[in-house]
Amino acid sequence: MTDKPTPLSGFPELLPEQRSVERRVIASLSRTFELHGFANIETRAVEPVERLSKGGEIDKEIYALRRLQADDSAGDSGLGLHFDLTVPFARYVLENAGKLEFPFRRYQIQPAWRGERPQEGRYRQFTQADIDIVGRDELGFHHDVEVVRVMVEALDLLPLPNLSFQVNNRKLIQGFYRGLGIPDVTAAIRQIDKLDKQPADAVKALLVSEAGATPEQADRCLELATIRVSDTSFVERVKALGVEDGLLEQGLTELAAVVHGCRDVVSGHVTVEANLRIARGLDYYTGTVLEVFMEGYERLKSVAGGGRYDALASDGRTTYPGVGISFGVSRTLVPLFADGFLAPGPKVPSQVLVALVDEESREASERVATALRRRGIATEVASSAQKFGKQIRYAERRGIPFVWFPATDQSSGEVKDIRSGDQQPADPDTWTPTEEQWSAVPPG
Amino acid sequence: MTDKPTPLSGFPELLPEQRSVERRVIASLSRTFELHGFANIETRAVEPVERLSKGGEIDKEIYALRRLQADDSAGDSGLGLHFDLTVPFARYVLENAGKLEFPFRRYQIQPAWRGERPQEGRYRQFTQADIDIVGRDELGFHHDVEVVRVMVEALDLLPLPNLSFQVNNRKLIQGFYRGLGIPDVTAAIRQIDKLDKQPADAVKALLVSEAGATPEQADRCLELATIRVSDTSFVERVKALGVEDGLLEQGLTELAAVVHGCRDVVSGHVTVEANLRIARGLDYYTGTVLEVFMEGYERLKSVAGGGRYDALASDGRTTYPGVGISFGVSRTLVPLFADGFLAPGPKVPSQVLVALVDEESREASERVATALRRRGIATEVASSAQKFGKQIRYAERRGIPFVWFPATDQSSGEVKDIRSGDQQPADPDTWTPTEEQWSAVPPG
Repeated sequence: MTDKPTPLSGFPELLPEQRSVERRVIASLSRTFELHGFANIETRAVEPVERLSKGGEIDKEIYALRRLQADDSAGDSGLGLHFDLTVPFARYVLENAGKLEFPFRRYQIQPAWRGERPQEGRYRQFTQADIDIVGRDELGFHHDVEVVRVMVEALDLLPLPNLSFQVNNRKLIQGFYRGLGIPDVTAAIRQIDKLDKQPADAVKALLVSEAGATPEQADRCLELATIRVSDTSFVERVKALGVEDGLLEQGLTELAAVVHGCRDVVSGHVTVEANLRIARGLDYYTGTVLEVFMEGYERLKSVAGGGRYDALASDGRTTYPGVGISFGVSRTLVPLFADGFLAPGPKVPSQVLVALVDEESREASERVATALRRRGIATEVASSAQKFGKQIRYAERRGIPFVWFPATDQSSGEVKDIRSGDQQPADPDTWTPTEEQWSAVPPG
Repeated sequence: MTDKPTPLSGFPELLPEQRSVERRVIASLSRTFELHGFANIETRAVEPVERLSKGGEIDKEIYALRRLQADDSAGDSGLGLHFDLTVPFARYVLENAGKLEFPFRRYQIQPAWRGERPQEGRYRQFTQADIDIVGRDELGFHHDVEVVRVMVEALDLLPLPNLSFQVNNRKLIQGFYRGLGIPDVTAAIRQIDKLDKQPADAVKALLVSEAGATPEQADRCLELATIRVSDTSFVERVKALGVEDGLLEQGLTELAAVVHGCRDVVSGHVTVEANLRIARGLDYYTGTVLEVFMEGYERLKSVAGGGRYDALASDGRTTYPGVGISFGVSRTLVPLFADGFLAPGPKVPSQVLVALVDEESREASERVATALRRRGIATEVASSAQKFGKQIRYAERRGIPFVWFPATDQSSGEVKDIRSGDQQPADPDTWTPTEEQWSAVPPG
């Protein structure tokens, strides 16, 4: 390798001091998910192309695999890289249904790939953190509340800007439109979903032309879409619009249960709102739908999203309903690093650098390091026996807070806190860092 | 999705109870690496195909990526999935050299992909755990000893069959052959590398025909290759063969330093031997070479391997020497699961199932769960208010050891250890599991 490589657009990579922050984020998410009983799985990176392209709409973004230098027919593997974690999870559930216990709570933190044009927050390789609960044949509605609560708790622990969970319910919208008498309910949902890009007047015209609504019906649809509150008062406001429908009632009850059920986990950092404009384009959602937005980063669109799907997977005989939320780890962290919102973490896990007096005494320095590591203190030994001043600067450049000078015939061992300059005699079998005890590995 | 999918050959996936073991293995490896100051990085899954195929010999195994349904010229991305973690790491070092501190210790635990024929221990997607130390322009020999020690310590903590590190040194072999006067030293190394597949007589004939050795020289090569000891006595045995060469001397000193340097970390579980037959086929090794074999699983060939390369990477002006070892996580664990050597771990992280009296009291059960989780005890609430017997069996099927019966108007809360049947009154703000305190997340 004799050339200097350049970064690949759409494939962001982190420096060690950024990766240490991402690892802490992932460890924190994992810990919250596990505290709630979610088991971790990893699926392979590839799926048969025909399974990936079943949805139809995103075929162009799939990376297909072929074996290089095999002749064309043998080379085409029929496989592609997954573009999310939902398709492989649904396949995993079907493939292993006989060996899983339902309801099955799982979390999965892995990369996915899409061949789309890279932009801020949209990458060709990106890491997602997904939680889902899947039932066999049925899945109680209370799991909708559970999944939202767990993700609120998980994201609340992360060093992110303020987050807003904006929740709606497909039954509520569909029931309202049906109760209004709009001829094409599905088309109406699709038009309302455009409200974040087009003015209300334009959407109104589309409701009339595309969904067959009267101008009066269109106005009521727009009125519904303006309702956005952080408590259950939306129920009364919707009822005041005078539409009656059984599905609407059910949607109102469910959405109120989600908002009410989260009241003790929301904070100044993470809020939950009913926002009756949220629809989510994908057809498979059947109840709760939600998107999560980050304050000051509305340009990224949602940083997390999900909802209830009554048929996550089906093998023809058995149907597996699910509810889940996907958080975009790369979509969130990479822009926050670029902006300097997230400060880099330690460049190395080492808390202590053991200095080296001369090459002959390397074993003595190694013995100090071994004693410290045995007590969980991450330690490295200086690479060469430079002057102590140089060894201290070596530690400074890496952000290692302590330098240990091993005992010699003339002196006992001493440890220097290079942030304060304080230096004290110390024994590697008993000494403990005076300040925050860094752990060699992020907690969890 | 209405069909029942079948597994893809060469792409093994784990059940949740196996994945929990793999996660503990990875957490334990990470912890040991970090205790020694190794920083974690992750590289993207893809590299430009021309970088991947520079070695030349393994082109056929590379999976190349093209965007599906794009026209042919636009679809070919010029990218392929990496087939190991060394090529992307070398590229990462070159790309970020100005931002890294050298010597740079890094570990990386990620999947790699090869399109080769699947067999036991050889998969098309497999996870590797690599450690490397890389210097700029130079890297002290003592880092060879360090890397071997760290991997010995790391693997010693894993629940694996006995492991044998078999170490050699390229300088030793090359110097010996040169000192013997063999015309083509490189060809001779290549023939000796066949000793695990061919009888000694056949290899002797090849040494004569392919490397230009005399029959007497070939005998001495074979004699060297039979030396295998767990201490530094190989030095005397090689010297007794009467060959003199400066490079040979250096190789003997280095190999003795590795074996001697590991004497305090070896155990009954992990041993380190000098085995003068180990050569490793790849050309880029220049000093220490090693392979690790697992007792009873010799059919897998080595489960780890590595060595010293004087030019891991170079941008034409600066050269980056390195020393590293790669451990095959999938190659090791997947066969051990299949054989039943590795027992499955917990199916779910939950330690406690909070029973549900009736749907109306779900909030009371949730409050118990919240109190337990606050104290780090992973907890789930029963999905539906079945009879308590059914709820207990639900916990049993998942391997959850404790069932909590929340307080009612008639009774205080009680917790049942379903392994012993013991049931006691308990307060969720103070109760602690009586036996091993499982952590919600593997330690580290």
